[in-house]
Amino acid sequence: MPTIAVDAMGGDFAPDAIVQGVAAVSLSTEIQCILVGNENRLQKLLEGVTYNPENIDIVNATEVIGMADDPKEAVRKRRDSSLLVATRLVESGRAAALVTAGNTGAAVLACAKHLPMIPGIRRVALASVYPRQVEYPGQDYLALILDVGATIRSDADELIQFAVMGSAYARRVSKVAAPRVGLLNMGREDNKGGEALVEAHRRLRSLQEVNFVGNLEGHELLSGRADVVVCEGLLGNVVLKLLEGLAEVVVELTAAAAQRSFRWRAGLAMLSSGVGRLRELTDYASYGGAPILGCQHVVIKAHGRSTALAIGNAVKVAAKAVRDQVPQEISAAVEKVG
Amino acid sequence: MPTIAVDAMGGDFAPDAIVQGVAAVSLSTEIQCILVGNENRLQKLLEGVTYNPENIDIVNATEVIGMADDPKEAVRKRRDSSLLVATRLVESGRAAALVTAGNTGAAVLACAKHLPMIPGIRRVALASVYPRQVEYPGQDYLALILDVGATIRSDADELIQFAVMGSAYARRVSKVAAPRVGLLNMGREDNKGGEALVEAHRRLRSLQEVNFVGNLEGHELLSGRADVVVCEGLLGNVVLKLLEGLAEVVVELTAAAAQRSFRWRAGLAMLSSGVGRLRELTDYASYGGAPILGCQHVVIKAHGRSTALAIGNAVKVAAKAVRDQVPQEISAAVEKVG
Repeated sequence: MPTIAVDAMGGDFAPDAIVQGVAAVSLSTEIQCILVGNENRLQKLLEGVTYNPENIDIVNATEVIGMADDPKEAVRKRRDSSLLVATRLVESGRAAALVTAGNTGAAVLACAKHLPMIPGIRRVALASVYPRQVEYPGQDYLALILDVGATIRSDADELIQFAVMGSAYARRVSKVAAPRVGLLNMGREDNKGGEALVEAHRRLRSLQEVNFVGNLEGHELLSGRADVVVCEGLLGNVVLKLLEGLAEVVVELTAAAAQRSFRWRAGLAMLSSGVGRLRELTDYASYGGAPILGCQHVVIKAHGRSTALAIGNAVKVAAKAVRDQVPQEISAAVEKVG
Repeated sequence: MPTIAVDAMGGDFAPDAIVQGVAAVSLSTEIQCILVGNENRLQKLLEGVTYNPENIDIVNATEVIGMADDPKEAVRKRRDSSLLVATRLVESGRAAALVTAGNTGAAVLACAKHLPMIPGIRRVALASVYPRQVEYPGQDYLALILDVGATIRSDADELIQFAVMGSAYARRVSKVAAPRVGLLNMGREDNKGGEALVEAHRRLRSLQEVNFVGNLEGHELLSGRADVVVCEGLLGNVVLKLLEGLAEVVVELTAAAAQRSFRWRAGLAMLSSGVGRLRELTDYASYGGAPILGCQHVVIKAHGRSTALAIGNAVKVAAKAVRDQVPQEISAAVEKVG
């Protein structure tokens, strides 16, 4: 069973939710976790919950990187922060994967600076899943979108690497043999979107290793046309947050309606499959977090608002990605494309 | 009453819907319209509807620019297309404004090439409205977003011009004295989004003429935090189409539920205010189309799927913008900012 280094001090509900999540995983699985953070505080929290001591270690870290801290400065200066200590546990081989719910920018920087990159990869990417409509039997109801904020702007080379990495990840994780890859753009035509997008489109068209379905327009994000959506970080970040925000508005509306009376609840039943999908978007607990792709190790960035359940899922996703050899799959795909 | 040149051959339902829309306007207002297109066909269509002949002229154009045609090539070669003939009617002063539901790229190019620009403006922008939540009394429930596809990438100068133009347009059209302007970005912090966005943010902060509220994240598009959302065309295009697509999904779900039984309809009543907002997004008939900003003349790009009602509204919006001297308002604002 793989060992997972868990940044116990990162996230809106850290360290309590992190410790609770890891404790629950220690009882239900054989996954080994190393909680990284203020040793005394973590020990005390552990004493308040039920857990299997054989599956949990603690490693002390004296500093914390806050959610609002400047990533560059924090990663440079806070060498003994829980994030950097946990990253070094992976770097040194003591842990096989990293899970953090902390500062996203700092997590991306820590990986890019301190973990070995997959040969040929220029930039790590942050990927996220979101629910959408399904178009063919066996299609995963979650699509993968990358990059959603590890980068800002991307050239054609980087977009193609995102396509290859996302495709390899989806192939391994969702077990779809040839995930459909789409390039988020302002039109379907191959001459749309400016130089980088036009070149990426042209080269993806002729890339045998990627099942490229062409440009994807904004409204098609909700369809099953693509399983992997490729875009630069600025675009992906705005789109993902908009999707999350829209889901929250709809869920709030239906929740308000559901409280009123039985008759209204009955009315909502019809909506439930659609709204359920949207609800999942806001229910981070059902997700395992967003993979940071491009390193030779598995790194899972859990949402800042992660509950204990979400942390537990992130740890399980990380362990599964290690067992499934996801970085090796990505590495092999990148090597093939050259 | 101003004269509006209407491209009668542009749009998915042209020329029928265009003629019907203009005919209805001729009966209910004093607005003068010039229908531009195949004279015989337009005359025949007019004979099939009720209209006021004092308010409608026809100008012949032998060519048509299709929705899927390459804008650059079409605008260069099809000099006698309904779009270009209509544009020349505005250029020569015979009409005060242009309305088209045709090829968006061609409409933008026709304006940029054949109509005089407002001094100092480098690029025209396509603006669109969308419904969102309201935060203060008197706030318009529609926000304006620009650019949504006239440009691809924008530098800081262009983003600032979009802010100034959008702010002036919203001030005149929605009668809000100091519309809140937000810069769509991947984070609230002023160092987010790369060079162009960081510089635009810094300069907008110190611009007295714009009520700048800072960076806007994806989920905040749905809040009332900004009345005018500024972004480059690639980002704005994807975001607007995603909003339209999401609205369609929700409207379809509720429509399916509403057909089932009275009980379900009652349940949906609670949702109606929220869903109604979303429905408006897809109900292009209730909109007057998207203004192309930056020219010295009023240009309204109606949606390709415009019905007769939508065309009628676009013509009324164009006439109102002429009477309200919207281009002069924008011109004065641009001059002030320098």
